[in-house]
Amino acid sequence: MTGLPAEYEKRIADYLTELGSVGRKGSGLWRFPFTPEYERAATLVEGWMGEAGLEVRRDPVGNLLGRAAGASDRVIAVGSHLDTVRNGGCFDGALGVVAGVLAASYLLAEHGPPRKTIEVIAFTGEEGSRFPVSFLGSRWMTGTLTPQDLLLADDDGVTLAEALAAAGYPGIRPPSSARTDLDAFLELHVEQGPVLDSAGRSLGVVSTIMGQCDVEVTVQGRADHAGTTPMGMRRDALVAACRLILAMREEVLGWSRPTVFTVGRLIVKPGSSNVVPAEVVFSIDLRDPDAEAFKRARERLRRMCRTAAETDKVVVSWRDLYSIDPVACSRELRDVLARAASALGHDPMMLPSGAGHDSMILAATAPVGMLFVPSVGGRSHCPEEETSFHQCYLGAAVLASALRELAY
Amino acid sequence: MTGLPAEYEKRIADYLTELGSVGRKGSGLWRFPFTPEYERAATLVEGWMGEAGLEVRRDPVGNLLGRAAGASDRVIAVGSHLDTVRNGGCFDGALGVVAGVLAASYLLAEHGPPRKTIEVIAFTGEEGSRFPVSFLGSRWMTGTLTPQDLLLADDDGVTLAEALAAAGYPGIRPPSSARTDLDAFLELHVEQGPVLDSAGRSLGVVSTIMGQCDVEVTVQGRADHAGTTPMGMRRDALVAACRLILAMREEVLGWSRPTVFTVGRLIVKPGSSNVVPAEVVFSIDLRDPDAEAFKRARERLRRMCRTAAETDKVVVSWRDLYSIDPVACSRELRDVLARAASALGHDPMMLPSGAGHDSMILAATAPVGMLFVPSVGGRSHCPEEETSFHQCYLGAAVLASALRELAY
Repeated sequence: MTGLPAEYEKRIADYLTELGSVGRKGSGLWRFPFTPEYERAATLVEGWMGEAGLEVRRDPVGNLLGRAAGASDRVIAVGSHLDTVRNGGCFDGALGVVAGVLAASYLLAEHGPPRKTIEVIAFTGEEGSRFPVSFLGSRWMTGTLTPQDLLLADDDGVTLAEALAAAGYPGIRPPSSARTDLDAFLELHVEQGPVLDSAGRSLGVVSTIMGQCDVEVTVQGRADHAGTTPMGMRRDALVAACRLILAMREEVLGWSRPTVFTVGRLIVKPGSSNVVPAEVVFSIDLRDPDAEAFKRARERLRRMCRTAAETDKVVVSWRDLYSIDPVACSRELRDVLARAASALGHDPMMLPSGAGHDSMILAATAPVGMLFVPSVGGRSHCPEEETSFHQCYLGAAVLASALRELAY
Repeated sequence: MTGLPAEYEKRIADYLTELGSVGRKGSGLWRFPFTPEYERAATLVEGWMGEAGLEVRRDPVGNLLGRAAGASDRVIAVGSHLDTVRNGGCFDGALGVVAGVLAASYLLAEHGPPRKTIEVIAFTGEEGSRFPVSFLGSRWMTGTLTPQDLLLADDDGVTLAEALAAAGYPGIRPPSSARTDLDAFLELHVEQGPVLDSAGRSLGVVSTIMGQCDVEVTVQGRADHAGTTPMGMRRDALVAACRLILAMREEVLGWSRPTVFTVGRLIVKPGSSNVVPAEVVFSIDLRDPDAEAFKRARERLRRMCRTAAETDKVVVSWRDLYSIDPVACSRELRDVLARAASALGHDPMMLPSGAGHDSMILAATAPVGMLFVPSVGGRSHCPEEETSFHQCYLGAAVLASALRELAY
């Protein structure tokens, strides 16, 4: 039994609280890649990594890496992401980074240099809150970021390439080559759903991560004066978009499967109360645990766009921003995590993840293992996101045990 | 027969072209009150007013007034507004200002000082593109701007009071007292609808202006993670808003009246593709030519918000931003305009206005008369907005004749 000494509960609380003050606007966090808020968070974690005895660097896309060289240069990595959604909470991503730093810190102090190299990773741009691309940091690390991704722009028209250059990461040219030195990646994360909390369980080991795609749908109508154009003569992009969104939602509900469909972003142009909407751009987030069903679902929704275009005299275009198939976590790492939890007196639950994680991307190049702690009420991606510091500590202790087993 | 000499057609074209280059982004105009773009446009018109021999001043809210004192200090005013919608065209508002300046310029040069005082007015903030308040300038002039209006904020959270102060108009305290020195206000405007163009007519005299109200509806749901929250357990503000908008539209269409209903602005918060929408704010623009029917329509839509709140487990709030009843144009001024048009060889059409205008506001304190020239294809509030310079000239010539009859 390794775990973490009891005094680490306070350190976790302090670190999460301090990190949770960076990028705060009102009650929520707004920490987007390549902004001053993000930079302050990265600098803070960089300091903690240094204090833990890790050698720190940033890769060409802004991922933060803290390394403790082992006898072997094969790497056992732990971590999560530092960015947040718009108006997000303090635990999503941050917990995995903080727990990774503290687990490494404790092991290095207590057990000296590891056999395998330990790396703590704070990924950038997991959420896709600023640019319409998720998993930016892990996709770079696995060589799946494309040159086209760099041309995607935020709401102010700044492209990812421009933001990278302005933040001091100029001239990157994806794809990078995928890392081949990883023997394992372990990620501790809040569940972000209601399963553990409603079952009264403290720890979960993830079996599979649901497939997920992000699509941008553009509905092109015609701008007209709101007072002088009879309603029947309009080509109102917003009316067409409302119809299409509700029809898609009904369609997905009708399948009675675990598929989830969400429109979280919708922009109306030109956006004046007295102008008939000329264009609506909205996002589709679609998730499914089964690869075949996932593919059929996308095709069905895409066909619905064509029908809507004919009915509403608008032009509807469908743009795949990214798509990732469901992935299974490593059987071996699941066992390592479950054993570590049991050794510390817990009875972990095995469950799938409805949320996407950097682990999902890294699975292409390394075995991945994920550990969940409960989210109160299943709430996440909002300021009310909450996990008790004690449960955060329990998760970090299991992470430390697993890291010791793999790296020492 | 007065009219305007033929060489004024080129001057109108030149003025409209020059003004149409100020605030241009891509193909459209973005000229909002209290911005550098607006200030450039006002400075340009100020110069033209000075060249025309008018004494120029700005009132406390930023309206631009060019005055030629007459034997009497009773005022015959002409003009329109200088601001545009988001991505608007070159004729809406600008034509009435340019035609007013040139008509006054010609009359002063040709006939000397007038009997009554002539005032050319370039109103500010007619459109409500930046702040959720329309007719800012004319409401100030008629004493109907309220202290609450000053607290309304633009998309960046800047209040109207802050914008006024920053632009050098500090300390205004509405209501002002309404002007009582106006004997008439004449406004030349593009029709912004398809009636004159499809009938092949060059000039229209406006009978009534439709009543119009602007409402802000807020739908409050709950932010949740798009991957981990089952669709049936959500309180999705966007799904509720889509349902409500479509239901309201069906309701209005079902009345089979000239009522028009438009949702032109809709904001989703937090606005990330992977977060279930917590809040949607949308505008309602409702117009009707009949005062009683207009009142009933508003009440019916408001009741629908209550029903939606119960059905969709969201909180829906309704906020009246402004409302103005239908108004009739002065019978006497309609005759003056029709006579002036006939004397110049035209056969003007009498028609109502579906669009709101500053004339509608000024009608509370002075007789108003409105003259329309055709909009190609009825298009307006968009970059494709178009009226031939020749038709602009014909309208300006009738305006000059009417101004001469009233002021000399």
